[in-house]
Order: sequence, then C-alpha cells, then structure tokens
Amino acid sequence: MSKPASVSFIGAGNLAWHLAPALDNAGYAVKEVYSRNPVHAGEVVERLYDAEVKASLDFSTSPSRIFIMAISDDAIQDVSREIVLPEDAILVHTSGGQPLSLLEFAATKNVGVFYPLQTFSKNRKVDFNTIPLFVEAETSDTEKVLAAMGKSISKNVFKITSDERKALHVAAVFASNFSNHMLLLSQEIMKDNSLSFDWLKPLIQETITKSLTIGPENAQTGPARRGDFETLDRHMEFLSTDEEVAELYKVISQHIIDRYQK
Amino acid sequence: MSKPASVSFIGAGNLAWHLAPALDNAGYAVKEVYSRNPVHAGEVVERLYDAEVKASLDFSTSPSRIFIMAISDDAIQDVSREIVLPEDAILVHTSGGQPLSLLEFAATKNVGVFYPLQTFSKNRKVDFNTIPLFVEAETSDTEKVLAAMGKSISKNVFKITSDERKALHVAAVFASNFSNHMLLLSQEIMKDNSLSFDWLKPLIQETITKSLTIGPENAQTGPARRGDFETLDRHMEFLSTDEEVAELYKVISQHIIDRYQK
Repeated sequence: MSKPASVSFIGAGNLAWHLAPALDNAGYAVKEVYSRNPVHAGEVVERLYDAEVKASLDFSTSPSRIFIMAISDDAIQDVSREIVLPEDAILVHTSGGQPLSLLEFAATKNVGVFYPLQTFSKNRKVDFNTIPLFVEAETSDTEKVLAAMGKSISKNVFKITSDERKALHVAAVFASNFSNHMLLLSQEIMKDNSLSFDWLKPLIQETITKSLTIGPENAQTGPARRGDFETLDRHMEFLSTDEEVAELYKVISQHIIDRYQK
Repeated sequence: MSKPASVSFIGAGNLAWHLAPALDNAGYAVKEVYSRNPVHAGEVVERLYDAEVKASLDFSTSPSRIFIMAISDDAIQDVSREIVLPEDAILVHTSGGQPLSLLEFAATKNVGVFYPLQTFSKNRKVDFNTIPLFVEAETSDTEKVLAAMGKSISKNVFKITSDERKALHVAAVFASNFSNHMLLLSQEIMKDNSLSFDWLKPLIQETITKSLTIGPENAQTGPARRGDFETLDRHMEFLSTDEEVAELYKVISQHIIDRYQK
C-alpha cells in the first residue's frame, strides 16, 4: 500500500460537501476545489484542512494525483474533455447513471468511477463507513488506488462494471426517489384534508423497518395485496378530484395485484 | 372514569394477535375470541390471561361489554348483522377504510370505530404506545369509553370522522403499501442483475429518515427531480424488457417532474 494521494475536487455540490471532508480526514489531503461558482467552492474549502479554491480547470501544476468530478451527469463529458491534468493523474466521475466510457476523451488513460450509493443533502450528516462505495477503472493499477481510497472511508467497497452500476442506479431510483415521492403524495393528501402528516410517521418507519427485515415481498399489506376491490374503488373515487394522483393510485395498485396473483 | 370493561374479539388475524394482549395487559380483560377458524382463535387465546375460544357469534350471555371486530373490510357488515350481543354492548370495527355507518344494522346503537394506524404482522413486535389510535362513535358516551380504552394503550388517541378516516386511509396506502412496493421493485431489479439488495439498505434507511425529518418535499433527489431527461431515457431503455415496470417508471417520474416544475 502506497501513501494516500492528494485529491482535487471538481464540483462543490452536496456530494463534494460530504465526500471531501471525509477523504481529508482519512489522510487523502484535499488540495483544491473547483466550481463554476467560486462561492460554493469556498464553502467546501472551509470544511477542509489545507485546500484552496481553484478558479479554472487547468490543473497542470496541481499537487494532486486524484481528480474527483462531483458534478451533474450532463456536465461530466464536457469537463473531462476540458480539464488539463498533471502527468499520471487519475480522473474519476461519481455518477451512478453514467458509464466509465464517458471519460474516453479525457487527457489521461487513468480514468475511473467512484460511486457512493447514498442520498446527500448538505444539512444531513452522513456516516460514510456504512455507505456502499462502487469503483471501476480502466486499468487495474487505477482500480487499486480507487479501492484503497474507498476503504479509507467505508467498510463496504465493491468493484462493479458500468452495466451493473446502471442496474444499481435504476434500482436506487425506485428505492429512494420513488418511495420518497409516495411519502410526498401521502403528505399532500393529509394536508388537503387538514390532517397531520405526523400521524403517519410511526406507520412509515415500521413499514420500512419491516420491509428491510423480512423483505418487501413478505412485508406487503393493504387493499391491493388483499385484492380488496371495493376499497380500491372507494379510494379511486376519493382521489377523483386529482386525475394524475388517481391514475398513479390505479397503476401502482394494479401492479401490486399482478405481483401477488402470479 | 369507570373501571375498564371486559372485551371480546371477533377475528383472530394480525390485528387481534397484537391488540388483544395489549388491551389485556392494560386492564381491559379479554374474555372471548371468535374466529371462523377456531385454531386461529386458539392461537390468540394462548396469548391472553383468561380468555376462551368462542365458537359462535351468539354473545348474548357474554361477560364482555366491548366487542371488537378485527376482521376483513368486506366481512364487517355481515358480521355486524349476524352477531347477537348482550344489553348495553358496544360494537366497534377496526377498519381504516370503512365508515361508521356500515354498522347501522347492528343490534346495538352503541357502535363505533377503533382504528390503530399501523401495519401488523404476527412475527413483528409492535409498541402500541407510539401508534396513533383513531376513535369515532355514534354517541358521546360510547366515544368516551373508546377514547379511554385507546388511552390505556397509546399516548396518541384522536377523534376523527369517517370522512377524515377515509382520507387518512388513502394517505396510509401511499405511505406504506406503495412505498413498500417501490422497495419490492428495487429488490427485483437487483435480483435480476445478480446484485445484492443489501447494498440498497443504507440508502433506503437514510431516504426515509431524511424524508421524515426535513419533509418529503425537501428530501427529493434523483434524475426526475433534476429534470435530467437523458438519464430518464437511459433508465427507460434499461427497463424496456418489462413493459409494466417501465410504464410505472415513466408515470412516477413524470409525476415528480410535474410536482417540482409547478
């Protein structure tokens, strides 16, 4: 094992906000943070021991070896073409949804992916130690460096391909974004009827805990699971003032019915 | 406050399994458990101090005052017509989705609803103290008895109308059944691609904790929230082997897009 390399961040959003200090604390000294908005870069720099705001994508004289793009999916390819790197630099993106091949036009062949599977918000503390980290690289040397960097902050580091990561990302959308949207819709229904969303919280917490413990296939309850069409009809009628929500109710209920009749 | 009344259960499913011992321990002595299947009634009786299996719906000589129907929605009206009760008996159903008026043909005017908002499975311990309990009754005397019974096991007892309870029940379907279904679909995608569902668990737990802490409207992330149509297209293509799941992905994503563009 070689000494931890120095790191520079391109991007200063939610992921950089959490990942940069985690690496910094683990010995991967973060030296530079670039953002199109220098104020954002400055906010991340303030969380680090010895980093500075970088104003351009010319890193030719950078002290870092690893360059982490924590930017939106659609900016990755452009930045990877534009960025100027020192010799032997490793360039990675952090996207679940984008293949490694997106970096084929970068000025280095030491390209990879470093993908932490979690939902990040600035005001929420995260514990990287329990977060699964997925690495992929063009060469086995680069892969080793990325795996070592991953292990410095998490006990769950896995090597997966771009295709596997795509499947993982789609599954994560269902598990996280879509389940959160179901909570949003339940909150809206409560609000529209002057009822307190707090009443649903013990139910939501138990639903998820149960699902993660005995598996979602064993945890399902409710009218669609039971094939209780009278209740389904009453609910559809109740929702008839909002066509889109009623449609969603129908499609998901039908889907549950189909799953449990198979 | 009068002395806790004795109670009989009609039905021996998941709810009776949990609710009967909770009331028994709180001083509401459960005397009888009826089920079409006496084996099931026996299983609940075994969890109680001094109860017996009841073989018929003729409760005319019952020592109980409160009769709790913990049965499926579509059986409530029939049982409420058929059941024979002692004088001054209180008859309640426990359904979120059914109105109080469903009991209008019962042999007593002391009818009500006693609805605990939680998902119950036999193999999962539940803490009633945190579960919201919703009561409704035809008369204020009955309502007082039901509220007192609720308070004996939970610190969250609320009086709501049948209309409010219907809204609550629809919201609970989104919050619990539908969010669990999103977890099922994510599990299926992982399995189909030989990936471990365990990898998603920290993400799922953080998604829900975040959503309950800062509100689902502030917690949303992901491609639909960002309006990242390229990723949405790639995901749709990935899911194209299962038309129904692809359709679900499309409808829910569109719904998220609409919500955040409003």
